[in-house]
Amino acid sequence: MQQPTVSIIGAGPAGLNAAISLAKMEIRVNLFEKQVKPGGQLSHWHTLFPDMYDAKTLLKSTINEISHPHIKLYTTVNIRQIKRQNNQWIISSDGNQEFISDAVIITSGFNLFDATKKEEYGYGIYPQVITSLELEQMFNGRREWPFSKDIEAPKAGFVHCVGSRDTKCGNNWCSKVCCVKAVKQAIEFKKQFPKAEVSCFYMDLRMFGKGYEELYMKAQVDFNIQFIRGRLSEASPSNGNKVHVKAEDTLMNRPLKQNLDMLVLMVGMTPAIWLNQHAERIDFEKPKFKQGFINPVENYQSTIYQNTPGVFAAGTCKGPASLIDVIQDAKATAFEVFAYLKKEKQNVEILEKTT
Amino acid sequence: MQQPTVSIIGAGPAGLNAAISLAKMEIRVNLFEKQVKPGGQLSHWHTLFPDMYDAKTLLKSTINEISHPHIKLYTTVNIRQIKRQNNQWIISSDGNQEFISDAVIITSGFNLFDATKKEEYGYGIYPQVITSLELEQMFNGRREWPFSKDIEAPKAGFVHCVGSRDTKCGNNWCSKVCCVKAVKQAIEFKKQFPKAEVSCFYMDLRMFGKGYEELYMKAQVDFNIQFIRGRLSEASPSNGNKVHVKAEDTLMNRPLKQNLDMLVLMVGMTPAIWLNQHAERIDFEKPKFKQGFINPVENYQSTIYQNTPGVFAAGTCKGPASLIDVIQDAKATAFEVFAYLKKEKQNVEILEKTT
Repeated sequence: MQQPTVSIIGAGPAGLNAAISLAKMEIRVNLFEKQVKPGGQLSHWHTLFPDMYDAKTLLKSTINEISHPHIKLYTTVNIRQIKRQNNQWIISSDGNQEFISDAVIITSGFNLFDATKKEEYGYGIYPQVITSLELEQMFNGRREWPFSKDIEAPKAGFVHCVGSRDTKCGNNWCSKVCCVKAVKQAIEFKKQFPKAEVSCFYMDLRMFGKGYEELYMKAQVDFNIQFIRGRLSEASPSNGNKVHVKAEDTLMNRPLKQNLDMLVLMVGMTPAIWLNQHAERIDFEKPKFKQGFINPVENYQSTIYQNTPGVFAAGTCKGPASLIDVIQDAKATAFEVFAYLKKEKQNVEILEKTT
Repeated sequence: MQQPTVSIIGAGPAGLNAAISLAKMEIRVNLFEKQVKPGGQLSHWHTLFPDMYDAKTLLKSTINEISHPHIKLYTTVNIRQIKRQNNQWIISSDGNQEFISDAVIITSGFNLFDATKKEEYGYGIYPQVITSLELEQMFNGRREWPFSKDIEAPKAGFVHCVGSRDTKCGNNWCSKVCCVKAVKQAIEFKKQFPKAEVSCFYMDLRMFGKGYEELYMKAQVDFNIQFIRGRLSEASPSNGNKVHVKAEDTLMNRPLKQNLDMLVLMVGMTPAIWLNQHAERIDFEKPKFKQGFINPVENYQSTIYQNTPGVFAAGTCKGPASLIDVIQDAKATAFEVFAYLKKEKQNVEILEKTT
């Protein structure tokens, strides 16, 4: 039997880490990315939570590692079909290229919630209203601040759960990382503008991970960031290039009004568009979806099909997850693929001996 | 070079899954467990969140898998020292047995918070006050209910964050799984006692994981479980074998009193005692600890030492984690160990060639 080949669809953190892990186990990898460069959503980040680690450093070292003789990276390639043929898969691109592989890992990631859908916040209408992604780009200098340089003490608000835990827009799930991301961004903003007044509007502060709770304490004690339990009802323009927000403080039981220089919408994680289009094109069986995210056959491994093994999923295509969890999941999935290929190989050898 | 051997310290879910993964990669494993049986804290569970999967089934299938020619399980063995010798480690037991290995994984798990430390809740004094672990044992029939069988509609309360997010008792961290565990247990209790009245007392409802938010909705809509934002101030005995609790409802801004037939303390996760005793006995370098949990050199892998590689940690000895995350972490760590051993082997071969 030949050295096995695995196709990985999506070269974000999950795909990159799965590829590196498989290559170290002497497995050949075809890594497909529809964008020009690998990196996925990680490319947009400035620093990571909770350790404020430099995102560019992590991305660079990860991309260096995929320069491996076993890994072939194909960028600007859109995969349109995955077809089963005996115990192998034929992966077809839009350009009608075909790739044969012994297993497939789907690592198509997530899309950010489209903030224009929450019309009441005025995203795309008022320039002061930005997304958490855009704020990250302001931190790393790729985008201008939405307020004048003369303002020494900008007033900023962060709205948690935009497009998450929201039955109105159909996204009932919690996006898991927005709370800690908001706290990280609020601290980073205060570091750049020490005189800024910063408020976070939340429902539940889900600071569940290692080091998150400490970050939350630090935000309150060292950076004087205000945490207000309540959902913003609306944002509207105000005098002097500000945005006016109304909220209900549900702990104080009182309505609340603020004029802000910047309103950051913590946009949630939604299923990748590719995945849902693509699901129509798997011609032998569709993966199970849960709210648009791939649902593995059980929670304790990454196998997608009970009866058609060999297709796996890793990372945020399965649901919202932190980067640290995505990396661990990618390595764990690489191991599952390795174990699957080894078993397949043994089956083939037994078959060859007995026939 | 010989086939490498890895020592794994602790045969809970992390140790078991790391052992199985390494064995599948043709690595020999010594798996040490100080208890009589493997399984760790998983042995106490009845059903798992969020899918209500049967804990016994999962444990049984995992334990079946460690019957592997590459895995040697040593139970009732207490490891007292890990000593470096060239590129290997000498693992010594209390019985002065020595085991040589090429890498070590610490999977010593966690201990549950000792509820008697929160004197105001009266655990150990009032029989109606139980821990979440004891409730699990009531579900699987290993322990009696704390109220009379004649009570058809028992009143039950769940206190979140007992020994977590609590500066008074020195445990500042969030234990990550208590919120979802409380919701799971509240639903399970209502299934057994459909007429029961159940309240959960919480600070923030941290239902962050896949399927958690849906479970929370289900608890409210299908099971009529009450969620009260507020911390219990105290519990005291009341007439008729009940326990009286006082709380502040911070959303309604009003004090609240209830007489309960059962008060469940959601005890948090604390560092394993073994780990902290043991840390004194690693004679070459101590691992870094953060609040008693092992802190790897960086967040993106499980290596404990920057300058003394070959010792890894997996699972809850690094901090609170769900079972699903622990399993993925164990597999990911097994892969990291595999990559480390492969590199070591190459180094030795290069050395042998050049000398």
